Amino acid sequence: MSNQQSLVVVGSVAIDWVITPEAERSESIGGAATFAAIAASYLSPVNLVGIVGDDFPQRSIEDLRRKRIDTSGLEVVPGGKTFRWKGRYHANMNQRDTLDTQLGVFETFDPKLPPRYADSGYLFLANIQPEVQLRVLEQMKAPRIVGLDTMNLWIDIARPQLEKVISRVGVLMINEEEARQLTGEHNLVKAARGVRKLGPKSVVIKRGEYGALLFHGDDVFSAPALPLEEVVDPTGAGDAFAGGFMGYLARGVEPHGEHLRTAMIYGSVLASYIVGGFSYDELIGLDLERIQSRFALFQRLTDFARADLA
Amino acid sequence: MSNQQSLVVVGSVAIDWVITPEAERSESIGGAATFAAIAASYLSPVNLVGIVGDDFPQRSIEDLRRKRIDTSGLEVVPGGKTFRWKGRYHANMNQRDTLDTQLGVFETFDPKLPPRYADSGYLFLANIQPEVQLRVLEQMKAPRIVGLDTMNLWIDIARPQLEKVISRVGVLMINEEEARQLTGEHNLVKAARGVRKLGPKSVVIKRGEYGALLFHGDDVFSAPALPLEEVVDPTGAGDAFAGGFMGYLARGVEPHGEHLRTAMIYGSVLASYIVGGFSYDELIGLDLERIQSRFALFQRLTDFARADLA
Repeated sequence: MSNQQSLVVVGSVAIDWVITPEAERSESIGGAATFAAIAASYLSPVNLVGIVGDDFPQRSIEDLRRKRIDTSGLEVVPGGKTFRWKGRYHANMNQRDTLDTQLGVFETFDPKLPPRYADSGYLFLANIQPEVQLRVLEQMKAPRIVGLDTMNLWIDIARPQLEKVISRVGVLMINEEEARQLTGEHNLVKAARGVRKLGPKSVVIKRGEYGALLFHGDDVFSAPALPLEEVVDPTGAGDAFAGGFMGYLARGVEPHGEHLRTAMIYGSVLASYIVGGFSYDELIGLDLERIQSRFALFQRLTDFARADLA
Repeated sequence: MSNQQSLVVVGSVAIDWVITPEAERSESIGGAATFAAIAASYLSPVNLVGIVGDDFPQRSIEDLRRKRIDTSGLEVVPGGKTFRWKGRYHANMNQRDTLDTQLGVFETFDPKLPPRYADSGYLFLANIQPEVQLRVLEQMKAPRIVGLDTMNLWIDIARPQLEKVISRVGVLMINEEEARQLTGEHNLVKAARGVRKLGPKSVVIKRGEYGALLFHGDDVFSAPALPLEEVVDPTGAGDAFAGGFMGYLARGVEPHGEHLRTAMIYGSVLASYIVGGFSYDELIGLDLERIQSRFALFQRLTDFARADLA
């Protein structure tokens, strides 16, 4: 497998304080790039780009390395403070309030890609300032597929930079409300068309416990979420989805509709695991066999036969 | 086709006043039984049970008859007032407020089934007082499959009667919030199990624009909703779903998992049409060819291939 078939993941690496109706965990390792990188690592080699302070636990860096994630792009700032997020989930687990955010070393993050990352064929720009996403994108030689996630904050305060980076990616992955906010269209079919006018050929709209929609040209695909009996901590579900999605593509498939559909299901599979525990507790110990067996569960979840009504 | 392969539908036949963010219609013909009966009529013979006043337009009764719906069980009360509902949809079209309800002839409804209805093999008890649902059920000889819908009001004020009728049906069809309210379980997998403990072997949880879930034994099926560019009026979507679902079963199939899955998609197909217009404007003029062609759209919407990761 050449370096072409590897995925660069850039985004937040964080320490979270997560409060759910049932439990809470402070010092919970988080960050969009952390979750996306671990999820993708089951499907392709991953090169991580991020920044932490020296309060970030060394054993978590070792966890990433054990998944064969290249962490040479993870900058550790001596004396610096890792990005911290504190949040509380509502009873429905689909909504949350941010209680505190401390940017720490994130405030001055100016990523320098290790030279061997630059010819990776695949790039996932996880949620982070659009300027940082752009600077990473500009250091890549010729990525075949670039995926991008963002959040309401950047739509509010950095729209010109966000639209610039959106115009240069193939796949935008955002949630329902962000799609509406970005395009001014309430209807998701129209919102997806609005996104495609900004540049991306494909739009993935994430809907939490309701699954995700893919719009690719005139084609629409609906991926369900697996109904789960125990949801411990939804943090990172969207990131694990994106990691599984991009990780599957980084195996070298073309960004055609059929492959994007399969990628949506791998994303859904990885997302279905991460919510079963805090942080990456449930995500870190998977293997291909379990992933394929849950993929088969998604086939069963959506399978139906056509009836002959003649 | 024997009378065994026909579906009795009982529930409200109404005159609505529907207000959406874009438009409104007063004197909009509505009612759960109206929508369910029309949806089901494409798939099986339908015998309607309901009550209206003489303010109910004769041309709407003729509309039903043109769909070959037997309306001999629709009581018209001289001088009576038809049940009226007035409601306003929120911008998201998935939530609504009831502005006014006038029970009219509904208040004293004591349905008497025409004798030839009693040996129908299939029965759909659309949303109505649980006592009325019970009285209809008791007039049936030996229905093969009984489906039931209800609403938060009856869970609040008539739980004993509701639990009695639920214990005697095979399929309960309710929305997410009702499932939670009925069982006290927020998690839908647990809520579905709680419903099955009340009697029904199968539980359909309706999720509006997110589709519907079927729980049948240990089997779970997720039916998507079709992403639509124009939603004019969501009133009756759940009823059209139930009508399509029951109408397909009433063709004589057994209530096994595979047939229930196909029935879920016919329900989703009929629901996808009704929301495109007020009242039954878009539902009334369909034919089997259009229904089958939209069924194929649902196949495309959910189709994905398994990848070999070896």
